[in-house]
Amino acid sequence: MSYNYGGGYGGQGYAPPGGAPPSYGQPGGFAAAPPAGPPPGADPQLWNWFAAVDTDRSGQVSVYELEKALINGDWTPFDLDTVKMLMSIFDTDRSGTIGFNEFSGLWKYIKDWQNVFRHFDRDRSGTIDGSELQDALRQFGFNLNPQLMRLVEKKYDIKATGPTGRGPGSPGITFDRFVRCCVVIKQLSESFMRLDTDRDGWIQLNYDQFLQTVLSLP
Amino acid sequence: MSYNYGGGYGGQGYAPPGGAPPSYGQPGGFAAAPPAGPPPGADPQLWNWFAAVDTDRSGQVSVYELEKALINGDWTPFDLDTVKMLMSIFDTDRSGTIGFNEFSGLWKYIKDWQNVFRHFDRDRSGTIDGSELQDALRQFGFNLNPQLMRLVEKKYDIKATGPTGRGPGSPGITFDRFVRCCVVIKQLSESFMRLDTDRDGWIQLNYDQFLQTVLSLP
Repeated sequence: MSYNYGGGYGGQGYAPPGGAPPSYGQPGGFAAAPPAGPPPGADPQLWNWFAAVDTDRSGQVSVYELEKALINGDWTPFDLDTVKMLMSIFDTDRSGTIGFNEFSGLWKYIKDWQNVFRHFDRDRSGTIDGSELQDALRQFGFNLNPQLMRLVEKKYDIKATGPTGRGPGSPGITFDRFVRCCVVIKQLSESFMRLDTDRDGWIQLNYDQFLQTVLSLP
Repeated sequence: MSYNYGGGYGGQGYAPPGGAPPSYGQPGGFAAAPPAGPPPGADPQLWNWFAAVDTDRSGQVSVYELEKALINGDWTPFDLDTVKMLMSIFDTDRSGTIGFNEFSGLWKYIKDWQNVFRHFDRDRSGTIDGSELQDALRQFGFNLNPQLMRLVEKKYDIKATGPTGRGPGSPGITFDRFVRCCVVIKQLSESFMRLDTDRDGWIQLNYDQFLQTVLSLP
């Protein structure tokens, strides 16, 4: 028996990350202005951005500071669940904050996602609509059926609430929610594959495993 | 074979909803000030609040308007996923907006949850911490093991990102996220029960069912 979930996540087809810093808020990036003085050995531009985000000058970026710094292309702040997701990915020493080295990884990750976002935002609207999202997920190797696509769009669109996934004037998916959406679909698919040990397309879960799997999602 | 997920959601043990309108932002409610003139037959206070939230005077409350109106006890806006959840519960005619009658239901729901929140916020901190959350979920009939409790707390706490669920200075769960958390645990448990047709404590899912179940959560 075969099953149709994608295993790939290559991200082929869009431009590879360049060396330029994220543009000022388009389609998603840091809002703060850089201050002076990089430490020796550090990439000066990157250190400037780190210092700008680290508003209390603690040498560490907290969730509060990151939340204040990250904005979408439409100037709305990143949603908290996306900020927390980024923290949990890049806080590799589990200190609860992001040091300069961890910040480098976070920075690159956001830059890479900006390129992905720009690539799939074909109409340059600043948000991702249903067909753009479908293209992105397909390119990542996730071929969701139309019903699931409508569900994903409804969940991550910033305003859609209707059953069709397109409320009146539905404006699409902002950068923060696009990144979270892709990470959730990837993580769900990986969880499914891990649990489907005999590769028959079905998984068996007890209540604790079910909750554990779902509550681990960003 | 028995399984330990809770089926109850009685909410016993806290005060029943009273007749008073939500207090101004404590622990969660509407930020806008009421204007003049209820229509005939309507509860005047309730209509005032509706008209205050309906800032474009369309006679319908949009996601935008609701998002602007709803604030937590700490004056932060409700997170968008909670606003969308409220819209999808109370937009019963699936118009994409909330009319006055739908607003009545939404209003009562928020008042009820305010009472629940106040009851379980034993230390009157304005947020729900791990042990308060555990009490609340237990009283609703959901007995999660300690590992799952840490995961739930980490997910819904406004700042916690660490593996223990308690980052440095972790301030707890705000009203919006508390409501969403309880609704998610309830919905997950109901999904599990529905899928566990032979009541043996295990469910079998294919990839589409798995995604459908998870992506339907608020």
